[in-house]
Amino acid sequence: MRTETAKNELMTVMTTADLLKHWQGHRGLTRRVIEAFPEKELFNYCIGGMRPFGEMVMELLAIAAPGLREIVTGEQEKYDHDLGISSKSELLRQWDETTEIIEQYFPKIRLEQYHQSIKSFGRFESTVIENIFYFIDNEIHHRGRGYVYLRSLDIEPPFFWEH
Amino acid sequence: MRTETAKNELMTVMTTADLLKHWQGHRGLTRRVIEAFPEKELFNYCIGGMRPFGEMVMELLAIAAPGLREIVTGEQEKYDHDLGISSKSELLRQWDETTEIIEQYFPKIRLEQYHQSIKSFGRFESTVIENIFYFIDNEIHHRGRGYVYLRSLDIEPPFFWEH
Repeated sequence: MRTETAKNELMTVMTTADLLKHWQGHRGLTRRVIEAFPEKELFNYCIGGMRPFGEMVMELLAIAAPGLREIVTGEQEKYDHDLGISSKSELLRQWDETTEIIEQYFPKIRLEQYHQSIKSFGRFESTVIENIFYFIDNEIHHRGRGYVYLRSLDIEPPFFWEH
Repeated sequence: MRTETAKNELMTVMTTADLLKHWQGHRGLTRRVIEAFPEKELFNYCIGGMRPFGEMVMELLAIAAPGLREIVTGEQEKYDHDLGISSKSELLRQWDETTEIIEQYFPKIRLEQYHQSIKSFGRFESTVIENIFYFIDNEIHHRGRGYVYLRSLDIEPPFFWEH
C-alpha cells in the first residue's frame, strides 16, 4: 500500500499547465460562440424565459477574473454580473482582458492551495480545484445553451471540439 | 528550477479519485435532467433542427463505457450511438449500467497512461486525460442544451451545481 501511495504522489494526472490550457481552450471556443451571434440577438434573443447569451457571458466575466484573483490574493471579491455591456465589441474586449488576467494570475496559485477549502465570493465553500472546475464547467454549460440559441436562429455554431 | 520541478511532481492538482468523482458527479446531474423530461419530449422534442435530448444521451452512452474500456484494455471499440432506445426507463437503466462500468474500469487506468496518446474509437488522437475530459465536457455541453429544451417546455431543470 505504501508503494502505491508513493507512486500516486509521483505521478500527476493533470498538471497546472494542463489545467490552464484546458480552461483557456474552452474560453477560446466560447469567444467564437460570442462572435457567431448577431449583435442584436446577443443581447435580446431568449428561449424559454432564459437570459440572452450576452448576459450569460457577463456572468462568466464576473466569475473568471475576480474568482481567480480571490484565490491568488486571498482578498474577497464582489460578485457582480451587472456589467452593463451592450455591444459585442465591448463584450469581446472584456473577454480578452480576462484572458490576460488569467494568464497572469493562474501561475500564482500555489500547488498546496489546490486542495484547500475557500469561500468563493464569500459564499461558495469548496476547494480551489473544485472552484476552478466550477468556473470551467459553468462556462461549458452556458455555452451549450448558446448553441441552441444559435441553431434556433439558423446560425451554424463553431465545432464543439477540435477533437 | 529543479526544486520547482520536484515540488511539482510531489504535488497533485487532481488525483484519479477527484477525477472519478468529478465525472460521476456530472453524470448524476445528467441523470436528473433525463428524469426531468416527459417521456414523449425526451425522444421527440427538438429546437433548431437539433436532436432530441434522448438521442444526445445515446451518444453519451455510446462514448462513456466503450471509450473507457478501450483506454483500459487497449482494444479498439466501435462507436455506435444508434442504440435504438425508445423509453425513458431503458435509457436510465443503461445510464446506471454505465455508472457501474465506470466504477469498475476507471481504477484500472494506470497512472502512467494519463499522458500517453491514444486513438479513441480508432479516430480521435489525444492523450488519455484529454479523452476523459472530452467525455465529461461533451456531456456538460449536451446537458446545457437539454436545459434549454426543458425551459422551453416550461419545466424547471435541476440546479446546475450543488455549489
